[in-house]
Amino acid sequence: MTNVAPQQELSPSTAALMARRVATLGPHSPLFYDTPLELVSGRGVWLTDAAGRTYLDAYNNVPHVGHANVVVADAVNQQMRTLNLHTRYLNHMVVDYAEALLETFGAHLNRLFLVNSGSEANELALRIARQHTGNTGILVSDFSYHGNTTSLAELTTGLTVREPFGAHVRAIRVPDATGLDEAQAEVLCVQALAEVDRAIDSLQQAGFGLSASLFDLIFSTEGLLKVPAGYVEGLAQRVQAAGGLFIADEVQSGFGRLGTHMWGHQLYDITPDLVTLGKPMGNGHPVGAVVTTETLLDEFGSHNMYFNTFAGSPVSSAAGLAVLSQMRDRNLMENAVANGQFIAGAMREIAKDSPIIGAVRGQGLFFGYDIVQPDNPSAPNASATKQLIELMKAKGVLISRIGRHDNVLKMRPPMVIEREQAQLLVESLAEAVAAAS
Amino acid sequence: MTNVAPQQELSPSTAALMARRVATLGPHSPLFYDTPLELVSGRGVWLTDAAGRTYLDAYNNVPHVGHANVVVADAVNQQMRTLNLHTRYLNHMVVDYAEALLETFGAHLNRLFLVNSGSEANELALRIARQHTGNTGILVSDFSYHGNTTSLAELTTGLTVREPFGAHVRAIRVPDATGLDEAQAEVLCVQALAEVDRAIDSLQQAGFGLSASLFDLIFSTEGLLKVPAGYVEGLAQRVQAAGGLFIADEVQSGFGRLGTHMWGHQLYDITPDLVTLGKPMGNGHPVGAVVTTETLLDEFGSHNMYFNTFAGSPVSSAAGLAVLSQMRDRNLMENAVANGQFIAGAMREIAKDSPIIGAVRGQGLFFGYDIVQPDNPSAPNASATKQLIELMKAKGVLISRIGRHDNVLKMRPPMVIEREQAQLLVESLAEAVAAAS
Repeated sequence: MTNVAPQQELSPSTAALMARRVATLGPHSPLFYDTPLELVSGRGVWLTDAAGRTYLDAYNNVPHVGHANVVVADAVNQQMRTLNLHTRYLNHMVVDYAEALLETFGAHLNRLFLVNSGSEANELALRIARQHTGNTGILVSDFSYHGNTTSLAELTTGLTVREPFGAHVRAIRVPDATGLDEAQAEVLCVQALAEVDRAIDSLQQAGFGLSASLFDLIFSTEGLLKVPAGYVEGLAQRVQAAGGLFIADEVQSGFGRLGTHMWGHQLYDITPDLVTLGKPMGNGHPVGAVVTTETLLDEFGSHNMYFNTFAGSPVSSAAGLAVLSQMRDRNLMENAVANGQFIAGAMREIAKDSPIIGAVRGQGLFFGYDIVQPDNPSAPNASATKQLIELMKAKGVLISRIGRHDNVLKMRPPMVIEREQAQLLVESLAEAVAAAS
Repeated sequence: MTNVAPQQELSPSTAALMARRVATLGPHSPLFYDTPLELVSGRGVWLTDAAGRTYLDAYNNVPHVGHANVVVADAVNQQMRTLNLHTRYLNHMVVDYAEALLETFGAHLNRLFLVNSGSEANELALRIARQHTGNTGILVSDFSYHGNTTSLAELTTGLTVREPFGAHVRAIRVPDATGLDEAQAEVLCVQALAEVDRAIDSLQQAGFGLSASLFDLIFSTEGLLKVPAGYVEGLAQRVQAAGGLFIADEVQSGFGRLGTHMWGHQLYDITPDLVTLGKPMGNGHPVGAVVTTETLLDEFGSHNMYFNTFAGSPVSSAAGLAVLSQMRDRNLMENAVANGQFIAGAMREIAKDSPIIGAVRGQGLFFGYDIVQPDNPSAPNASATKQLIELMKAKGVLISRIGRHDNVLKMRPPMVIEREQAQLLVESLAEAVAAAS
């Protein structure tokens, strides 16, 4: 991401828009690419810029069921033309949506709070955990991001915030077993879980106690880590044994993105106490949720007058319902498996011939490439990663990067990607990798 | 508000919906009325329930330009069918909206952050203030509500939260000059400003210092107080002289609701550092904002990577632009003045003949009645207030109540209310007051 655009490369009209943006939103609002991209329309996996050029979107997960999805747009329109109100009056839409959403969870996760964003969801989950435990301590990953409020800024490790890191927070290193054999992975797992034990001890000794752990269970900000078998189960067991609540942040991993499972936490043999949802939930309509147990909802609800004006409105519910129906009607989880395997297979082939590609990461329709130094496969190569992103843009494909060394190429197309488009993605990738190697 | 509905009064289908709601959202999600109202459609100021009965909505301010406003619905639909994306790509919609919105503010308030709710707006305003001042102390009213996050729960005085009241927060009593003559009001003002001085001193002596004050400048949760002339100016002067930032929460008072002014802070001779927006901004589409100065935006932006996925999208911007255009095209501020004066005048007439009405409050299209004991006009009468709300519902008019004694009748119709509908409101009110007196 860059904040200072080389204005000379922009067309006159885009440069004028950029100047108007800086004069209202300021110069710090983040933008992708050395030369920012002015987009004017989209359809499915395609985006069109102000010059009329089309791009294959292999980055954005919010337009989950496709850019400018007409079914979602018209469901929202029909409901906006009918009724939009808060939940202090009864209306069937929020109940219909709540039932449809809860059906996708295990039996113990049978209640929900609706909110407007992933940040609001994680905020509420932390309030519930602090109140339930009477503790304030929190366990997070040492390279993660869960939202933009004060409480979440205090536990942010994956991007710049000015708030000091909370004294009540412990950041642990999530282990990556990529390239390890089973025995090595087991050793790594034991070491990593010992770090969890030390972190929980430290919170207890400092008097904070443990209220919750908060993790994205596909560890995407960290670089799509491949955790050792048993690590997440060991983490959850330790957190819950210490009396803390286990929060699964599904903002990245949820809504079938992984293909085989609707939710990231279903990859593991665990029972989260709280699950937080956001980004893809309304295909861009602002909506989020906290899914939890009857006991935790009742405890929080009976001690707090919690109300959220916009959340759970008939229109937000219509957007959420339309996303779920599109996923079902178009078999998008099956598509994530099939085209995900196709893309991952091609990525492995490309990696074989390239000295700058380390690990191939991801599952379903969420992929990563470790980009490394050609003469040292364990050394991150952030400049080649950036070059690849710009090369892909020049070829008409939008991707990005993640990871603590900014060297994990990140690809995460809308769930409606078809084989021909997946083919274009991997062909472009092969060419870009060849050019950058 | 009630959480336990007498199910026997509900129709079988509404009772079934209620049961399904409790089984998903739980029993604590607040509902209006002894017998909750199931609403199925709306248009302008009208709402229709599941039995086909229509109600005049004299309560809801979120549907600012009218329920099911077709111009807003179709602007959102057109943009949803074109493009909806975050702000890390350039798009003209957010810039068009930012310019249109900032035009309504004084010259020094020339930058904004877009967010998804009033809670997110107040959260961000507090982050900016804490970082700018290096202090944590906050000044609020002793009966107020600004949102549902942890930081905002710690300064909530107007409803039940389980979090302890923050040691870094001072809650002051906002003075009400209703019924006082000029000299008495002046004395009250001096006393109330002395309390502000003591609160700021207390924060400084306790080592918190002052980061900000956070007030709704029409003091609506408090009961639509009539503050003495000079009070708000004295408050702002003291906060800013102590190095704190003055935050105007315009979630209730903004977007022309007051008729004579677009923003509540424009009623006073003050220059807020931060202004927070929410509820009516998108006619129900989830959107909020923090409007501030170039200096404060640059300071925060250069020290924090602040990004908000849903906020500032082309669709949210389309909703915001459509609300502003409806306000202008239908002269809704002029309407708020004209029909506001008509309703307020009729309310004063009704009050003359009633032993249970104390003060008549409000401005523009936001009204309150103090409901008092017939034999003691200074004693709040919460039960008669509740009775009036139910009587009005029986007459087909929706209103509510506010204030620390639950005895201020609250009326706040959508801005599109017409004379005939205003007439119906005051006629129903006259009958209900006569029946309850």
